[in-house]
Amino acid sequence: MTTDNSATTPQDTILVGILTGSPNDLPKVVKVRDTLDELGIRSEIVVASAHRTPDKVFAYLNRAHAEGVQVLIGCAGVAAHLAGVIAGHTRLPVIGLPLGNGPLSGWDSLLSTVQMPPGVPVATVAVDGSRNAAILAARILALKYPAIDAALEKLAEQERQRYDQTADEALAALKSTS
Amino acid sequence: MTTDNSATTPQDTILVGILTGSPNDLPKVVKVRDTLDELGIRSEIVVASAHRTPDKVFAYLNRAHAEGVQVLIGCAGVAAHLAGVIAGHTRLPVIGLPLGNGPLSGWDSLLSTVQMPPGVPVATVAVDGSRNAAILAARILALKYPAIDAALEKLAEQERQRYDQTADEALAALKSTS
Amino acid sequence: MTTDNSATTPQDTILVGILTGSPNDLPKVVKVRDTLDELGIRSEIVVASAHRTPDKVFAYLNRAHAEGVQVLIGCAGVAAHLAGVIAGHTRLPVIGLPLGNGPLSGWDSLLSTVQMPPGVPVATVAVDGSRNAAILAARILALKYPAIDAALEKLAEQERQRYDQTADEALAALKSTS
Amino acid sequence: MTTDNSATTPQDTILVGILTGSPNDLPKVVKVRDTLDELGIRSEIVVASAHRTPDKVFAYLNRAHAEGVQVLIGCAGVAAHLAGVIAGHTRLPVIGLPLGNGPLSGWDSLLSTVQMPPGVPVATVAVDGSRNAAILAARILALKYPAIDAALEKLAEQERQRYDQTADEALAALKSTS
Amino acid sequence: MTTDNSATTPQDTILVGILTGSPNDLPKVVKVRDTLDELGIRSEIVVASAHRTPDKVFAYLNRAHAEGVQVLIGCAGVAAHLAGVIAGHTRLPVIGLPLGNGPLSGWDSLLSTVQMPPGVPVATVAVDGSRNAAILAARILALKYPAIDAALEKLAEQERQRYDQTADEALAALKSTS
Amino acid sequence: MTTDNSATTPQDTILVGILTGSPNDLPKVVKVRDTLDELGIRSEIVVASAHRTPDKVFAYLNRAHAEGVQVLIGCAGVAAHLAGVIAGHTRLPVIGLPLGNGPLSGWDSLLSTVQMPPGVPVATVAVDGSRNAAILAARILALKYPAIDAALEKLAEQERQRYDQTADEALAALKSTS
Amino acid sequence: MTTDNSATTPQDTILVGILTGSPNDLPKVVKVRDTLDELGIRSEIVVASAHRTPDKVFAYLNRAHAEGVQVLIGCAGVAAHLAGVIAGHTRLPVIGLPLGNGPLSGWDSLLSTVQMPPGVPVATVAVDGSRNAAILAARILALKYPAIDAALEKLAEQERQRYDQTADEALAALKSTS
Amino acid sequence: MTTDNSATTPQDTILVGILTGSPNDLPKVVKVRDTLDELGIRSEIVVASAHRTPDKVFAYLNRAHAEGVQVLIGCAGVAAHLAGVIAGHTRLPVIGLPLGNGPLSGWDSLLSTVQMPPGVPVATVAVDGSRNAAILAARILALKYPAIDAALEKLAEQERQRYDQTADEALAALKSTS
Repeated sequence: MTTDNSATTPQDTILVGILTGSPNDLPKVVKVRDTLDELGIRSEIVVASAHRTPDKVFAYLNRAHAEGVQVLIGCAGVAAHLAGVIAGHTRLPVIGLPLGNGPLSGWDSLLSTVQMPPGVPVATVAVDGSRNAAILAARILALKYPAIDAALEKLAEQERQRYDQTADEALAALKSTS
Repeated sequence: MTTDNSATTPQDTILVGILTGSPNDLPKVVKVRDTLDELGIRSEIVVASAHRTPDKVFAYLNRAHAEGVQVLIGCAGVAAHLAGVIAGHTRLPVIGLPLGNGPLSGWDSLLSTVQMPPGVPVATVAVDGSRNAAILAARILALKYPAIDAALEKLAEQERQRYDQTADEALAALKSTS
Repeated sequence: MTTDNSATTPQDTILVGILTGSPNDLPKVVKVRDTLDELGIRSEIVVASAHRTPDKVFAYLNRAHAEGVQVLIGCAGVAAHLAGVIAGHTRLPVIGLPLGNGPLSGWDSLLSTVQMPPGVPVATVAVDGSRNAAILAARILALKYPAIDAALEKLAEQERQRYDQTADEALAALKSTS
Repeated sequence: MTTDNSATTPQDTILVGILTGSPNDLPKVVKVRDTLDELGIRSEIVVASAHRTPDKVFAYLNRAHAEGVQVLIGCAGVAAHLAGVIAGHTRLPVIGLPLGNGPLSGWDSLLSTVQMPPGVPVATVAVDGSRNAAILAARILALKYPAIDAALEKLAEQERQRYDQTADEALAALKSTS
Repeated sequence: MTTDNSATTPQDTILVGILTGSPNDLPKVVKVRDTLDELGIRSEIVVASAHRTPDKVFAYLNRAHAEGVQVLIGCAGVAAHLAGVIAGHTRLPVIGLPLGNGPLSGWDSLLSTVQMPPGVPVATVAVDGSRNAAILAARILALKYPAIDAALEKLAEQERQRYDQTADEALAALKSTS
Repeated sequence: MTTDNSATTPQDTILVGILTGSPNDLPKVVKVRDTLDELGIRSEIVVASAHRTPDKVFAYLNRAHAEGVQVLIGCAGVAAHLAGVIAGHTRLPVIGLPLGNGPLSGWDSLLSTVQMPPGVPVATVAVDGSRNAAILAARILALKYPAIDAALEKLAEQERQRYDQTADEALAALKSTS
Repeated sequence: MTTDNSATTPQDTILVGILTGSPNDLPKVVKVRDTLDELGIRSEIVVASAHRTPDKVFAYLNRAHAEGVQVLIGCAGVAAHLAGVIAGHTRLPVIGLPLGNGPLSGWDSLLSTVQMPPGVPVATVAVDGSRNAAILAARILALKYPAIDAALEKLAEQERQRYDQTADEALAALKSTS
Repeated sequence: MTTDNSATTPQDTILVGILTGSPNDLPKVVKVRDTLDELGIRSEIVVASAHRTPDKVFAYLNRAHAEGVQVLIGCAGVAAHLAGVIAGHTRLPVIGLPLGNGPLSGWDSLLSTVQMPPGVPVATVAVDGSRNAAILAARILALKYPAIDAALEKLAEQERQRYDQTADEALAALKSTS
């Protein structure tokens, strides 16, 4: 089996397409892009709905494929069909980010995203798990781009330090008050 | 950004490690391997438990990393911690397959698998979605190995034909009896 | 406001299109058609998947619109996107029939079908409510076709008689054994 | 099959009856009427309870039938019986709008509304889906009244423009701050 | 406050009306009657549906009231409106027995029965709790009829003996096999 | 069957005992008493826990029985055992009021209250349904005390008037603003 | 802090009391005892109900305390109050084993067992987790009795061997058939 | 069977290790420690994640075992694997405290904590049940340390007095306002 050498992607290629069904969801969606930025991965946010503007979804997918996007992330709430519909139109890996909007708190979007029928998988992350959607995309891309793997390693190290520091400070604060 | 050319993997490299916490779950786990076989992707099944034999899990992960495994699939029922624990020990993409065993029918394994905290994503597929776990792994690997992308395309085409044929036969049967 | 007189539909026009995502679901789908048959409403069953054969779905919707189909019924299990995707491609009323397949018993298909975002309603009936999907279609069509209203009235009358008779027989059986 | 020409309804006929079980629910119910207003469809709101004032419900249904109302919408929270009770007293299409009131957040009203037994369908929309209840009513009426179909088409076009504009503005705002 | 002395009910008065929406549910409904029989309380089973034959429900309630029925039990599955509708038409205490039919296993009937709005209580017992529906009716009637209180006391004593005996036998069987 | 004439209860007898497991729940519990007050039914509130002060529960039950209390209401949140434990210590009718406290919003208290095993029924009302707990108690007592039946009738009439008036005012307000 | 040396318990002391509310549940309860037997821990099974025979529960608890029982296990289905009621009558550690009986599959018993209010903890294990109830009791007792700790270590070792052997055989079987 | 006399633990030994996966959860975790303090039981809080810093978890467990910690408490939200992972690495009793963080309100952490597979029990307490986690630890330790049993008895007595006093004051306040 040979690897795809044609994929030597320059720094300025957009590798991740982030689709969201609703402008209202952008605050959660931006966190996906910000985490990808931290990892040095270029991405673009597209507002397009599986129900209201399906043509825009499909047009984007065609363009994305042509321009070298390699991972797609579908973010949606309630009856969250976006990631599933995307997964039916591409062979690229599709990540589903269920959003916890509405009266049912994300139970609806979680089930609508994850319970896909055989043949059309959506790699689902936690409800409102914006950061994990980005990191999962990075893990996938890191198989191919060593620089992303290095960035992931560095981020993990930074997070561990931040985590330990926060923990130490919080525990110190506990002790001083007890 | 440059691609990882060292990864030119020969046909006989195991690319996917499939871990399951219980021998009882093997019938569902074998379906993951069988689908990978259909796609020409070599895999290995490892029975190791996040709770009962964690050392075995970690030993396998070390070996797998060294030998070039690129995607890990954790299959578990009830309080399904396996995929999450794996995801904490590797930067490889980890797929979680929640199994619908036990009195709560998979609600427990779904939530235990998908609701991972920030930093440690598990790419979760449907409860008992063995086939999709394999296809998701293939979509991820296809970014790097054109042969896998071609196999996915061929499988999709075969499935569509089989699907249409089954549908036609079923509809014909309906008409003849109505 | 004037009515649409051009819609004087002959007896042999197909008024209801029943779409299902999987040949396996046909036994439940056939019950929809059979109830429409009882009511003298012509329908057709189409096997097409929102994920696996979306082009087939859209092609059918275009043809259906052209040929005078007036109500669409989408039947699907698990992450049931079919009815929602249809509703995004048509202005016709779309009925969603969630199927109770799989380990989560229809909770997933119910939420995926009913929790549609603003602008794209799906008229959802009960999980596995095949008969009600048909009767709802008939009630909608009856606004326009007096013959269907008459058929509904007759069916309701028959059902009430059957219901009362079954009840009487069951109660009589109870009494004779008590 | 012939169409019902007697139904040539003048602009000032009330076509949709919106029933709600509780004065407290009126803020959500008014959104149904407002959307119908946008579509040029006359409607009336009736406060009547399946449990507390059933006679008022039935009296209204009789009057509504006589005066040419063609679609009924039942809005209720908790054990939401209103739409189901209406559906048992009419052959008109009945839409159920479950309201997400109370400690169980609408799970109770959703199941009470949608899980109707065979013979008595309620066309259920999302929890708190006021706008969709109205649009579903319009889609049903549009089969008969071309003007409503045109209004729906125009509304969809407006919504798509508003949607695209909101998305563009939001994305532009994102870029200027990043 | 004076008691109602006019209610001196002869042995042959029917004190409990048991309504069920579906002939299919009669096997569970009969258990309610059988338990009432054990307690010497006369009852009658009426098959009438809140949706399909509401007139029959109301006609029965009028007759029942006139003939001295004092407790009503509504037994229904799925969107179980029967007990709630009854409670809106009477001031008698109404017991709701949710039946665990259908794909959602009684979650729907439980919520539809118990989550009644203020003013119209339904005294709900467990899903498929036929025996408890009867015993609750007896506890209510026992406030007024000392003979029923005595029957309840005797039944409880018998049950306790049967319970202890079954337990002893089961434990003895355990010991002999261990 | 003869009625219990010895029960001619004077106006100043406490007929309903309201037990609650936690002082924190008193605001919801007081609404039960206030509704009973509206109906002219004397009641008393007892704070006693099935787990923390079971002796106090049993002591109260003995006293209540001796003093002529006829209906008991158990109010509790989370794992709400209070009503069930009461029901095991008395033959009086026991009403369970599940409170929607805590992170699970009352799902826990609802199931803990209603799913009682055979022989020990709890007449469960809606989560946080304080008013209905009182009205159910009144309906039970009204079988025996005509004055309570009259009070219930009057309350229902008042509520219907208040309901209609609120509805009229709300609808009038709607019209003036539209 | 000094340890309790008076607790030097001879081999023939019963250390664990297993209570169950229903003779029907004995097959699941016996598995608890059998696992305790494997670990060399004497136990006794008592059939007593928190609702039907509370006196028997309390009498047993008094006797158990006097005779040196140190851990109590309450096994119950549906509205599972047994473990909670026990926990209110003792300071010994109480383990709750929720049983997955009935139409709601153990959701009711899980919540009724685990969601205990502050002050009265129940150490809850998985629905139908008979084996874990026993092992948890052993872990608690092992703090005090080194022999039990040794037995736990040996059992874990045996289970790990059995686990590995089953896994090896199953994997070997897989290979021979593939 | 002989008791473990070597465990004569001085007042200054840490008996309980409280682990939490996230610094954000410390406010709930501190309540566990505070309750242990009330009971005179020394404890330590460790911030370590089953996913992000598993080595830290295992290092702590080794140290804790060596230093005489006897009960471990794992506190975690969402896919709460911490307690389960701990239970797989020790034979000490492990208490799981599921935290009700995130959009699913603790359903995820409850199931992830309690539904452990055979062999690896986690003694689970209520969602956000910080106080009960501590009291359960104390009940376990009290089997061995009479001083802790005495502290538990005293705490229970204090709580009962506080409970009765709060109840009396609240009831008095009710009376003065009614």
